[in-house]
Amino acid sequence: MEKKEWGFKENHDLHAAAAFTIRNVLEAIMGNIDETRTGKPMIHLGHGDPSVYPCFRTSTIVEDALIESIRSAKFNCYPAGVGIDSARRAIADYLSRDLPYKLETDDVFLTVGANHAIEVLLTVLGRPDGNILFPRPNYPIYEARARFTSLEVRHFDLLPEKGWEVDLDGVKALADDKTVAIVLINPGNPCGNVFTYDHMQKIAETAKQLGILVISDEVYAHQVFGDKPFIPMGVFGHIAPVLTLGTLSKRWIVPGWRFGWIAMTDPAGILKQTGIAGCLKSCLTITADPPTVIQGAIPHVIENTSESFFLNINKLLKDAADLFYERLKDIPLLTCPHKPEGSMFAMVKLNLSAFYDVVDDTDFCMKLAKEESMVLFPGDAVCLKNWVRVSIAADQAVLEDAIGRVKAFCSRHAKH
Amino acid sequence: MEKKEWGFKENHDLHAAAAFTIRNVLEAIMGNIDETRTGKPMIHLGHGDPSVYPCFRTSTIVEDALIESIRSAKFNCYPAGVGIDSARRAIADYLSRDLPYKLETDDVFLTVGANHAIEVLLTVLGRPDGNILFPRPNYPIYEARARFTSLEVRHFDLLPEKGWEVDLDGVKALADDKTVAIVLINPGNPCGNVFTYDHMQKIAETAKQLGILVISDEVYAHQVFGDKPFIPMGVFGHIAPVLTLGTLSKRWIVPGWRFGWIAMTDPAGILKQTGIAGCLKSCLTITADPPTVIQGAIPHVIENTSESFFLNINKLLKDAADLFYERLKDIPLLTCPHKPEGSMFAMVKLNLSAFYDVVDDTDFCMKLAKEESMVLFPGDAVCLKNWVRVSIAADQAVLEDAIGRVKAFCSRHAKH
Repeated sequence: MEKKEWGFKENHDLHAAAAFTIRNVLEAIMGNIDETRTGKPMIHLGHGDPSVYPCFRTSTIVEDALIESIRSAKFNCYPAGVGIDSARRAIADYLSRDLPYKLETDDVFLTVGANHAIEVLLTVLGRPDGNILFPRPNYPIYEARARFTSLEVRHFDLLPEKGWEVDLDGVKALADDKTVAIVLINPGNPCGNVFTYDHMQKIAETAKQLGILVISDEVYAHQVFGDKPFIPMGVFGHIAPVLTLGTLSKRWIVPGWRFGWIAMTDPAGILKQTGIAGCLKSCLTITADPPTVIQGAIPHVIENTSESFFLNINKLLKDAADLFYERLKDIPLLTCPHKPEGSMFAMVKLNLSAFYDVVDDTDFCMKLAKEESMVLFPGDAVCLKNWVRVSIAADQAVLEDAIGRVKAFCSRHAKH
Repeated sequence: MEKKEWGFKENHDLHAAAAFTIRNVLEAIMGNIDETRTGKPMIHLGHGDPSVYPCFRTSTIVEDALIESIRSAKFNCYPAGVGIDSARRAIADYLSRDLPYKLETDDVFLTVGANHAIEVLLTVLGRPDGNILFPRPNYPIYEARARFTSLEVRHFDLLPEKGWEVDLDGVKALADDKTVAIVLINPGNPCGNVFTYDHMQKIAETAKQLGILVISDEVYAHQVFGDKPFIPMGVFGHIAPVLTLGTLSKRWIVPGWRFGWIAMTDPAGILKQTGIAGCLKSCLTITADPPTVIQGAIPHVIENTSESFFLNINKLLKDAADLFYERLKDIPLLTCPHKPEGSMFAMVKLNLSAFYDVVDDTDFCMKLAKEESMVLFPGDAVCLKNWVRVSIAADQAVLEDAIGRVKAFCSRHAKH
């Protein structure tokens, strides 16, 4: 009995998509680190996950809520595809606090973190010959998942000289009658900016004019520490329908719990009338669910986490932003055009002509990893070449150490 | 400013796929139940989830493991895409206990339950003009997810008169040089059968001859209670490469924890050489993760759950199978050709010609729900028209009540 050639083949599209992810980019950079050789413990400012630092540990109320869910033995069962009602209701009530109208249980769909919400949304919105508008710079998983839909990606610019506001003229020039949606990330990842009420209203009006829906990625909702308040895009849901992405990951500092949601903020009912709400339900029926045992903890988490916990986290982020922004002024090879005022990030521009042997942002990150055991995220991977994204969400002493390492690195590699 | 028509459209493919799922089928049936009208509390034998019954409650060791993971605060962080090493290692060691060789950490990929593992596998194996062999009857999510790949689905029969063994001649007749894999579910869902060593060896040899890999869905691994032992397909990994799907859901009775895995049992290294292993990693990089906090509990769960817990669950299932099979003999309109010996299910044939007003399996299930507040799963949704799938995993008293209700229903609807 002679074996034929194996009938299965490698799917190269998967590798191409995975190459766009934060994970794969970080893996390559971290592969360049040798703590023993440098004598320096790794400092990881490459992603928005400060959960390893004791000062950023989640609240005991959050931990207790999950323990209570386990001990109740009520949440070992399969969940409904869109999530269990008590968790959806708690998220609907939570979001409604900051909206001019009340979300219902059916307006909320639960996902396995925000990345999964992005996967679901792009799957739902896929249509032949359709296109979607993404910001540049962008959060990478949007780029990765868009490769698995029929949607063409078109990028509009965020303008650093205008505090990373959306280039609305650019948006209007890109859109056509096959455009399905515009994606916004506010507070900004990777830019650390926060949109004003007036700017958001203009975005909503532009979306209405163009006949597209607004996908508002509010993964860093309420994590603001500058002059601008956080305003949910849903406030403008009466102008154009808004699908909001949210998560426990950042505000509650539990990214490893993988709990997120998609909320419809659409008082005119356009998403229901056009069948998008039904498609979200169908899509969630055939994909992964957040564990029921975690869903069971959500009402307790949402209702009982103290305001002082959130205030403390925002104070830590504010202090980090102040420190980072001031200390960076001492490094002439780097420029941060806009002080972080939200999320956990700053975008920093490399003045490449002042380096004698750093050719681009990836080269910068790879050499920094090798020489200083330090991880930053290359701008190329967020669609902005020759910038780097820095997470400021770290213990203060670690951040001081990190900036010292970057400064030493830049001194060694500067033209003289 | 005049609004254009909205650019987003309903994606009907999603509804078509969702229609194939257990969830959507059950939702339709349960919509027919009115406990107040019937005066009977709902009995749900429509899915494999006995976690609601106190006798099937998971072990306190399992609950404690997750609580310990939470309290450690070590597992609030983002996981690696393929899972954290300690959890992968624990699963590799666990599976290796029953294999003639040792799986490595890199042979195990973690998923958000087994449904997600199916989604990942079908995505990885998709190729233009490719086809895949599914059993008939089948577990529905395979059919749903296959619609989202380029794979053509071809069905081979499981033979009730041979204890639901695979029709190997049928398999050979279906396969061609574009066939990528054969899917097997052992212990069987929906059939409740268990494959013998000899039959499995023949399947592996057939797969080798055809040049296809074996996907072995072992979601109900070790849950056997007849004469046949459970043998993992990986035992035959030296004949043809095997991708095994597993989960905590059934053996540990925590389906709501959504923790599963894909394991490569492939001593010849064919899956690595052909790039399938790399594709699994890439696919998992861009899709949902099981929560790190659950992954953190896995070594403790795997190492410490007592054998007596598993023995007790299998004893409950055996007693349920005995009761069900004996009592069913009293209902002439129904036939169970093969006593359940594994998993949590029995397939029961409707002798339709003996009913006066039941036209098919869906009609049977809908009327049973309405009249008796009872849920069974229609065979049509597992690709076997005019059978029904019955979950036997229930409290003994509930199962007695359930069979009584089915008997009364059949009496009322029998031709006289």
